[in-house]
Amino acid sequence: MIGVFDSGMGGLTAVKEILKLKPDAGLIFFGDTGRVPYGTRSRETIINYALQDARFLASKRVDAILVACGTVSSTAMPELKKMLDIPVLGVVEATAEAAVKATKNGRVGVIGTPATVNSGSYVNYINAVDPSIETFSQACPLFVPLVEEGLFSADCDITRLTAEHYLARLREKEIDTLILGCTHYPVMAEAIGRALPGVTLINSGAESARRLSDMGLLKDSGGAEYFVSDSTEHFAGLASRFLGMPLNGRVGYVEIDKY
Amino acid sequence: MIGVFDSGMGGLTAVKEILKLKPDAGLIFFGDTGRVPYGTRSRETIINYALQDARFLASKRVDAILVACGTVSSTAMPELKKMLDIPVLGVVEATAEAAVKATKNGRVGVIGTPATVNSGSYVNYINAVDPSIETFSQACPLFVPLVEEGLFSADCDITRLTAEHYLARLREKEIDTLILGCTHYPVMAEAIGRALPGVTLINSGAESARRLSDMGLLKDSGGAEYFVSDSTEHFAGLASRFLGMPLNGRVGYVEIDKY
Repeated sequence: MIGVFDSGMGGLTAVKEILKLKPDAGLIFFGDTGRVPYGTRSRETIINYALQDARFLASKRVDAILVACGTVSSTAMPELKKMLDIPVLGVVEATAEAAVKATKNGRVGVIGTPATVNSGSYVNYINAVDPSIETFSQACPLFVPLVEEGLFSADCDITRLTAEHYLARLREKEIDTLILGCTHYPVMAEAIGRALPGVTLINSGAESARRLSDMGLLKDSGGAEYFVSDSTEHFAGLASRFLGMPLNGRVGYVEIDKY
Repeated sequence: MIGVFDSGMGGLTAVKEILKLKPDAGLIFFGDTGRVPYGTRSRETIINYALQDARFLASKRVDAILVACGTVSSTAMPELKKMLDIPVLGVVEATAEAAVKATKNGRVGVIGTPATVNSGSYVNYINAVDPSIETFSQACPLFVPLVEEGLFSADCDITRLTAEHYLARLREKEIDTLILGCTHYPVMAEAIGRALPGVTLINSGAESARRLSDMGLLKDSGGAEYFVSDSTEHFAGLASRFLGMPLNGRVGYVEIDKY
């Protein structure tokens, strides 16, 4: 059974990709909806929260953990790997490798939360694989609240202008590939794509799900269970936006401060 | 000495009004920047966080507490009053009374976070004072992230469209008075005012500061001290946006989960 966690609901876009590959995958998801967002917080706070999230999943006896959160994957992987004695996978590696494969002109953009962009995680990994690639990063702090507010349609003027506000500079840089470095962003992929015509978008959840599958970590074992640290009703109401299908599985509450 | 707390930085708009009335007011501010925002969280979480915030201020031996947060003032006042043996004042009462005085056509709008609007706190208090007043409420979840992202200018298209998105319905209802039911909102008052021309805006921080002064709770005793639950540098960098002047006072970090 695989454990998946995120700072909030965005990680469900990774769950969506896992269920595409294996519809009956044994899976426990934890979304830290009581403390979302992580991306504007300090490094110490992010690490502290991430260790609590992982301890909760470990207490459920999962065989491996996917950190389906760009912010945590960019900030807390060494600490998580040190604490856990099961495989733990972040979204950065698979996503960065996919971007290196996808680019033709060697110019790659990275968008994410402030914490993710400041960490330089995607850029460092891309350049470890291929030092000749030029990268251009942009923090987009309003994308997460826009998605959570339901304003993710490419036809919404607020969404369109906010996407242009953040992405105009990347367009000028003539990138041909863009990493969606936050698991919320696939929900507004169409709006992002319109602001950057012709650019290949790399979905971190999809790349990581494929990596899990390649590693043999996705097993048929009885479906998904979901846990959150705030209202279970709110989560159940919004989950289909991220999953692209109705939520199928029990939703429970966790007092995450206790872990 | 007065204690002031908020879920984040918005409460500084109330501090600004206190310092306008008494520039050397003895004041301890706590902003829960490590757990902001409260307004989209569940009632239980908000009450739990508010009690921790108040315990921290009480440990600093303040004489009274101003809850400079629309969400907490709308959700946790009975619990706070039960726990504390010093005066504790929320922003709802003074603000609602000011709106009742200000309206001429008896049609008052209320904007705030989802938690504030769902609580019905302002509406209930307005109708307790004058049952003939008609009220119209609107949650505006994107206003807080816009202010925190620096997009609060009335000339910014994103801000303008977001204000119109939320406020068009209140305009149709022909309100003549609007309660800014979140302490972040005064920062974007000009954009809000342009979406609702001719409407009187009621600033909850200003009304509450006046009430504190009337109650004799503002004392000259050596200036302000600030505490936050996330990066002190980030706070110091943004504080002037809310205070309308440079930050003057020490900024310390608090591990608020421990209170």
